[in-house]
Amino acid sequence: MIRLLAIAGLAINAGLATFAFAGDATVIHVASTFPLSLPLFSEATGRLSEQVDSLTDGEVKLVFHVPGDLAPASDTMDRLSAGEIAAAWSTAGQFSGRDSAFELLSAIPFGPDTIEYMAWLFEGGGLTLSHELFASYGIRNVPCMVLPAEGAGWFSKEIRSVDDLKGLRIRFFGLGGRVLARLGAKVVQKPPGEIVDAIRSGEIEAAEYSLPSMDLTLGLQNVARYYYFPGWHQPSTLYELYFSDATWRGLTARQRETIETVCAAVMRDSIGRAEAMQMGALEDVKKRGVKLRRWSPDLLLTFEAAWGAVAEEEMATSPRFREIYRSYERFHDNYGFWKRFSYLH
Amino acid sequence: MIRLLAIAGLAINAGLATFAFAGDATVIHVASTFPLSLPLFSEATGRLSEQVDSLTDGEVKLVFHVPGDLAPASDTMDRLSAGEIAAAWSTAGQFSGRDSAFELLSAIPFGPDTIEYMAWLFEGGGLTLSHELFASYGIRNVPCMVLPAEGAGWFSKEIRSVDDLKGLRIRFFGLGGRVLARLGAKVVQKPPGEIVDAIRSGEIEAAEYSLPSMDLTLGLQNVARYYYFPGWHQPSTLYELYFSDATWRGLTARQRETIETVCAAVMRDSIGRAEAMQMGALEDVKKRGVKLRRWSPDLLLTFEAAWGAVAEEEMATSPRFREIYRSYERFHDNYGFWKRFSYLH
Repeated sequence: MIRLLAIAGLAINAGLATFAFAGDATVIHVASTFPLSLPLFSEATGRLSEQVDSLTDGEVKLVFHVPGDLAPASDTMDRLSAGEIAAAWSTAGQFSGRDSAFELLSAIPFGPDTIEYMAWLFEGGGLTLSHELFASYGIRNVPCMVLPAEGAGWFSKEIRSVDDLKGLRIRFFGLGGRVLARLGAKVVQKPPGEIVDAIRSGEIEAAEYSLPSMDLTLGLQNVARYYYFPGWHQPSTLYELYFSDATWRGLTARQRETIETVCAAVMRDSIGRAEAMQMGALEDVKKRGVKLRRWSPDLLLTFEAAWGAVAEEEMATSPRFREIYRSYERFHDNYGFWKRFSYLH
Repeated sequence: MIRLLAIAGLAINAGLATFAFAGDATVIHVASTFPLSLPLFSEATGRLSEQVDSLTDGEVKLVFHVPGDLAPASDTMDRLSAGEIAAAWSTAGQFSGRDSAFELLSAIPFGPDTIEYMAWLFEGGGLTLSHELFASYGIRNVPCMVLPAEGAGWFSKEIRSVDDLKGLRIRFFGLGGRVLARLGAKVVQKPPGEIVDAIRSGEIEAAEYSLPSMDLTLGLQNVARYYYFPGWHQPSTLYELYFSDATWRGLTARQRETIETVCAAVMRDSIGRAEAMQMGALEDVKKRGVKLRRWSPDLLLTFEAAWGAVAEEEMATSPRFREIYRSYERFHDNYGFWKRFSYLH
């Protein structure tokens, strides 16, 4: 029913697609670029729907749609930017076709863990830069979830040296994928639902997606023999709600405050939840006969050096990338000492 | 004005002290056991007041009172438990006079950092145990802020070995204080406003209070020569809003949901904010000529062994302490592997 209404809205005109009125409620259709059935995404979007509805006393209803329902995932940014869809649930790196700077607003390779990412974003100037970048595309971003270090990918064969990466056909997201391509891998993009079949058919030999608990839901443990850690490419990953400028401006100050507050609460909960789920997921992976591996220090150094080169390239290409990456580096130089000095572990 | 009203309320009867009616608003007077002017506390309680008011459309107003205004800090738990005051802003360890188990709901020596504390609390069963313990005293607790590792204390002299602790007169909170007492220190309690004078007068020779940014506000850098790290006694500390059962039951489901959601948002913000403030605070400390020191591995091992003995004593004395500490240990045994395996650092 929701799907039919949404499609009908799109078919008529852009204005109707942005808002549909049900009594006095503002109904905002949100295009997710991720499957909503996955753990963590389903809990976050479920809570967002329920609590924004409840705390606005039914004034605002967020209706989440799976990829393809309102727009293909790859087209979500353009349609949102054009005001053809009202809102999206995604991570900034999904919008990197327009500017590689968006990648840094998802995750920074060899960068911050969840705590440091939040500290930089909310206290170190990151969010101001992020709002500016999105505003230049007619979008308002609201940080809504942060997840810890991902797995570093599932592989059909063991990776003992950088030579094993040469020519390797691998599905890999974002800046981490740029690093592997620089080291000779053939990096491809694939939506999550197609990854397992692509490995099974031999089209690709390896893939990363997300945390162990999410990867298990996709079934990667059934088609790959090795699972690598740590996820140097995404030591933390930020997820957000995105609103077209028209949608955001159409809300009252209190409605906007409610959405931002519920997003903050969802982010608070995502931190503990994501951590608590992974140990069981690793045990499941091991039970299925998949071998858990940690990258050798040699390979991690190789990845980090290649990341440095990719970062330099991007800074030369995108002024926004340079501005955002330098902002994070300044914060990190400052923060690092406190962390080393004050933490027990 | 608020102060006069609150005292008048107490003077008449307990019912009036719990709720004061201003038009249709439910005004809840909250007794803080901490100075509200300190950084992080002031921001958290300020946001709680503003956002609970705004998001309930003025239905619920939280009015925070400094220690002594509604009750002496040391008497807050008893008065709240008896329903004589409506609510409190504190940390569970302040209530340990009734049961040492409350200490673990503030901080666990050699225990979890902020991320792991949240994971255990919200996903590992900690909050259920915490709700049970508080409910047995007629109190509802709402987790509202979490702070990172504290400093381990300000000292007039260098501490080179455990012998330097023997007879040392030190102000120290909670279970960490129990550990130092076991190692021969003379541990005293003092409200934050009296710590600096007590060191200046020579009544005590050392003190811990909180994070560097908070300690600086108290002025500890003016009276002590050495500042030690890491804060093994409080690798993370939880702060909460506490409501008497009558106050909590007097709220609607949506009002309770709003308070819990704003608390979650405040906790989300406290994480990044607290981290981001400390490096500057350390630099300030250093500029004042205070020497920053890290405990030697020898001393940390000594502290950890003494903590083990204190934990055993408390488990033998308090069934709740045993239950809560075992719950955390089970979570930690499970979580630890994931953290070591998946994190880059």
